[in-house]
Amino acid sequence: MNEIRTVEAKQHVGQAVTLRGWLHNVRRLGGVNFIVLRDGWGTLQAVTENDTDLNPLNDLALGTVIELGGLVIANAQAPGGLELQQPRIRVITPVTHSSPLPLNKRRLNAALPTLLDHAVVANRHPARRAVFRLSAGAMAGFRATLSAMHFTEIQTPKIVASATESGANVFKLDYFGRPAFLAQSPQFYKQIMVGVFERVFEVGPVFRAEPHDTIRHINEYVSLDVEFGFIENHFTVMRLLREVIAGIFNHLAVNYAADLALLEANLPVILPEIPHIQFSDAQELILRRHNTDVRGEPDLSPQDERWLGEWAMEEHGSDFLFVTGYPMVKRPFYTHPDPARPEYSNSFDLLFRGTELVTGGQRLHRYDDYLAALDRAGYPPEPFETYLEAFRYGMPPHGGFAIGLERLLMQLLGLPNLRLTTLFPRDLNRVAP
Amino acid sequence: MNEIRTVEAKQHVGQAVTLRGWLHNVRRLGGVNFIVLRDGWGTLQAVTENDTDLNPLNDLALGTVIELGGLVIANAQAPGGLELQQPRIRVITPVTHSSPLPLNKRRLNAALPTLLDHAVVANRHPARRAVFRLSAGAMAGFRATLSAMHFTEIQTPKIVASATESGANVFKLDYFGRPAFLAQSPQFYKQIMVGVFERVFEVGPVFRAEPHDTIRHINEYVSLDVEFGFIENHFTVMRLLREVIAGIFNHLAVNYAADLALLEANLPVILPEIPHIQFSDAQELILRRHNTDVRGEPDLSPQDERWLGEWAMEEHGSDFLFVTGYPMVKRPFYTHPDPARPEYSNSFDLLFRGTELVTGGQRLHRYDDYLAALDRAGYPPEPFETYLEAFRYGMPPHGGFAIGLERLLMQLLGLPNLRLTTLFPRDLNRVAP
Repeated sequence: MNEIRTVEAKQHVGQAVTLRGWLHNVRRLGGVNFIVLRDGWGTLQAVTENDTDLNPLNDLALGTVIELGGLVIANAQAPGGLELQQPRIRVITPVTHSSPLPLNKRRLNAALPTLLDHAVVANRHPARRAVFRLSAGAMAGFRATLSAMHFTEIQTPKIVASATESGANVFKLDYFGRPAFLAQSPQFYKQIMVGVFERVFEVGPVFRAEPHDTIRHINEYVSLDVEFGFIENHFTVMRLLREVIAGIFNHLAVNYAADLALLEANLPVILPEIPHIQFSDAQELILRRHNTDVRGEPDLSPQDERWLGEWAMEEHGSDFLFVTGYPMVKRPFYTHPDPARPEYSNSFDLLFRGTELVTGGQRLHRYDDYLAALDRAGYPPEPFETYLEAFRYGMPPHGGFAIGLERLLMQLLGLPNLRLTTLFPRDLNRVAP
Repeated sequence: MNEIRTVEAKQHVGQAVTLRGWLHNVRRLGGVNFIVLRDGWGTLQAVTENDTDLNPLNDLALGTVIELGGLVIANAQAPGGLELQQPRIRVITPVTHSSPLPLNKRRLNAALPTLLDHAVVANRHPARRAVFRLSAGAMAGFRATLSAMHFTEIQTPKIVASATESGANVFKLDYFGRPAFLAQSPQFYKQIMVGVFERVFEVGPVFRAEPHDTIRHINEYVSLDVEFGFIENHFTVMRLLREVIAGIFNHLAVNYAADLALLEANLPVILPEIPHIQFSDAQELILRRHNTDVRGEPDLSPQDERWLGEWAMEEHGSDFLFVTGYPMVKRPFYTHPDPARPEYSNSFDLLFRGTELVTGGQRLHRYDDYLAALDRAGYPPEPFETYLEAFRYGMPPHGGFAIGLERLLMQLLGLPNLRLTTLFPRDLNRVAP
């Protein structure tokens, strides 16, 4: 007897097979009965006119863990064009409690707090699973693209001694009686590692203690980090980022077509060269198009970003837009200034459908520039001693970026809240499940 | 002009090329001068009889970031059989401080505290880099092996609400005014995710606040976690683990031959079936072979593990040994007992050359069993509410394991201290660099 996964059934038409999984649905339609099994990858429908075939399920709830044997038959009427006939059911783990969520409905209609409170169960719904499979696929595409370009994967510490990096709020912890902090990004370490491997990437959690309660912030998220040396300026970084973005979406398109279809995802247009606009030009554009004067603001608001996203699609047919040259005043101390306009930076954000997806840029690389930058920022050099060691002993011009994994999924899938893109979100009010 | 990496030089013999990297070594031997460039992947020697070719390096220290042009020539006398002739040097970032560590020596001879204090620089040494490249390779091999077996990658939260998992000490943090903890493992979440994807893996940091100061403990490390459903018992898990271990080492052997050779690594023997011994039989064996009576001890000591490792090699020619059936009393509450001997567990450790590398086993999967186990352990059920939800709504028999990435490298490479296997180790006394 072939043990197969649901998604392999099409290769076994005419054969007797066994599947294992969860009882996803049962419908008794008077004369004909449908049983749907869900395994880790998909669902498969079984059909029988013999009511007694369902006897093992008497008094049991959906979610019961079962083994299901039968004959695979092609049937154009059945979901996916296949069904199992002559089903034989064996119960592996009986379930008697009714699910708090209707997992057997095509859409999981429930209020966000319910979904999050019962994430343990909600995440079993096929549409929720598709989101998380795409999340895994995005990580895999990121790694594959960078590995092919000779980047080395690193794992840097998440418990760090210094809280001061870019002014973001950090979580404090007790480290054997001493204060320590959770890393708000691998920024310092990935730069240090450019001194080792030249080209590095990291996939890992980052922690932000910012008391934001918005649809697009969570306090622990997965950052796809890249840093590399021997760049000319931030445009070198932007060109690499374009290849990484293309690599991620290509990986999803090739390997996750079913999940993309299930979620009605609209793959983005990635032009050979992603259009870019200077920060100050973007503000002028907003004034012209929307009669709103944001000139002088040191950063773009979410509304500004949405407007710019609309413009990028209208003007360039692009889902992506680089905004370059943010004012130095809002960028962290390690940011490299634009040599021609030192009050602006060699930095960029990448907007994806009108929301910031990536922040990046060129960093300072000369030891003396760091000493001056720390001094300007009013930071004492001592907490940065080991970071500075990298520059004292030789660093090339370098830069990098960080892609927010959850933001990428939110924008790709048009989800209304970032919390829906991660298995067990952490926010201002939520540290469980 | 071809811009190449050092490791690509052999494909460019006879061609003019340009490389970029760090000045790794300079030797002026009176009449002939050698310059060694280190880039992110290797080193390449340039040679010239013309002293003035070295003028750009006057007054500069090793570590200076340079561009090096020249002609690639095959020369059996040169390291790697290649050298660059007619070198032209351009300085990119001058360095004037002398390195605190002799990076240009074949072996980086320095005391451990010096290596760790100056990890930012020490990690640039070719032999140190080889360790970390193998670390990246082990992660890649782990992921590739499991992906091929239809496992889904997950990222679970590292900030958690409950401190109680297996009795290990946890780091406490202030989460917006509430207590929270750093995850000591993804155990609960990976089990929950078996209810979603059936087969899951995770590569991520784990945090242990144990005040151990030994050569084989650090307080933040990378755990390679696996969990999957529909097992028969812990032997199903052990068979999968054998394939994962073989997959990792095969990936290293195929893709990291140069790093393995540089470190004189001795790849392990992985038998088609890794030998196993029951915990109580192992204690009897130690009594017989070493005249030391550890019977009645609830766990194996490091010395016991070393003795068992020696026995596995002598008796079976195996670098690996499974020890199965540890007493329930020392295993966490979710451990599945051996149905035939309920005071022993369906758990295992995998020893690699006499050191514990992996812990794993079968878990409880019935809701009622969890309620009883928590009661027996004296835990109130409330903090486990969402974990219990997974079992209330149906879980198959399942199990899994966690491989310590750093332990794997330490044992593969015969390193004297676990701290040497990770970029920036965290221990009782060290939270920087």
